[in-house]
Amino acid sequence: MERVSGQHISGQFNEELESIRNRVMVMGGLVEKQLEDATTALIKQDIAIAQHVVMSDHKINALEVSLDEECTQVIAKRQPTASDLRLIMVVIKTITDLERIGDEAERIGRMCLHINQTGAQKSQLASLKHIGRYVQDMLHEVLDALARMDADAAVRIAKMDEGVDREYESVMRQLMTYMMEDVRSIPGILDIMWSARALERIGDRCCNICEYIIYYVKGKDVRHTSIEAMESLVQQKR
Amino acid sequence: MERVSGQHISGQFNEELESIRNRVMVMGGLVEKQLEDATTALIKQDIAIAQHVVMSDHKINALEVSLDEECTQVIAKRQPTASDLRLIMVVIKTITDLERIGDEAERIGRMCLHINQTGAQKSQLASLKHIGRYVQDMLHEVLDALARMDADAAVRIAKMDEGVDREYESVMRQLMTYMMEDVRSIPGILDIMWSARALERIGDRCCNICEYIIYYVKGKDVRHTSIEAMESLVQQKR
Repeated sequence: MERVSGQHISGQFNEELESIRNRVMVMGGLVEKQLEDATTALIKQDIAIAQHVVMSDHKINALEVSLDEECTQVIAKRQPTASDLRLIMVVIKTITDLERIGDEAERIGRMCLHINQTGAQKSQLASLKHIGRYVQDMLHEVLDALARMDADAAVRIAKMDEGVDREYESVMRQLMTYMMEDVRSIPGILDIMWSARALERIGDRCCNICEYIIYYVKGKDVRHTSIEAMESLVQQKR
Repeated sequence: MERVSGQHISGQFNEELESIRNRVMVMGGLVEKQLEDATTALIKQDIAIAQHVVMSDHKINALEVSLDEECTQVIAKRQPTASDLRLIMVVIKTITDLERIGDEAERIGRMCLHINQTGAQKSQLASLKHIGRYVQDMLHEVLDALARMDADAAVRIAKMDEGVDREYESVMRQLMTYMMEDVRSIPGILDIMWSARALERIGDRCCNICEYIIYYVKGKDVRHTSIEAMESLVQQKR
């Protein structure tokens, strides 16, 4: 994560912020891996990978707790203001969303194990391939934008969420048709639906992180505003 | 929200913290009302109330944004430490969960409007009565515990989530049976399932707030620990 200003009287303060930023990116990397593994496990019905996903979530949780603690200590000791304070705020909010994306990945992992019992055809699971790929790309790009604190990229990525929503609706319609065609498929299809919902929610959380990036760069909270408002803010006064 | 220490050199700082605490409770009250209205609208299929819920969510969003701004300003201006800083951290985290509970309530409101088209029998909707009541009680109690910063109550409320999960599983099984009995009911039942899931998630968010209360009172982050660990921490050294 790049900073607007890197000048501090205290070199140690600089190091602390640097360490926090690095650890957020490490956390992001872990979350990205979990999502990738969870999606692969689900689509290929790979039980070993799914179990690994479920067993690995605790690492993300531990990073969230320790980063929160670091941020609180930096506020108490260093009394950050302006862009340094915004950075800390962005970290506090971002790690909550990253942790929840990790939870959704874990949920997909569990769903994969459950599907093993309820039964679902690989052809039905394949309907998640596209949305899975799309959401993974979105997360990858948002982490990249976060590393560079790139507000333009943040707007572009936030726009991708419409695509996720469209794909989600289309997957749900298709899955509902399968259900109606064969009643016995209902339990398995429901698991696939929960997984689709988890992917859709991850898209929403990526959008949240986009909003934090814009807040850091522009100093303005754009949550609950339109994508057009975000875009025109980012384009203002270069 | 009660504070561990109410003594500050600056009377104005005291007032600022007081104002933040009051506004969090106002936000909590709004969220509680939204959840109550959404659940009533859904079970009674009351379109007017559902529309009102969907139209009112923006008030909660606005409170979240302005409270976040106030918290950031207090950190920058007052440089809080110890329990004052913990209070601010708790507020920042709590309002995120309150806002998301508001989102879930809005989602239930939208689902109610959608069910009006997909069609669902009142007898099927009635299966949400119990879990709806339970989650409403949980939210009410967690807001009360937050107002009093009561760690014992927080542990007790966090334990209630098991009941929500059990009730959720039972509702889902029942709804799945309805689906399998009558294929035409599937679209309507899916909407009821999404609403049940929203209620279950609200239970999770109430648990999050319980954890923040314990963090404030005990100064220790209990997220991702067991309920037993939370309980033994709260019982330590009275």
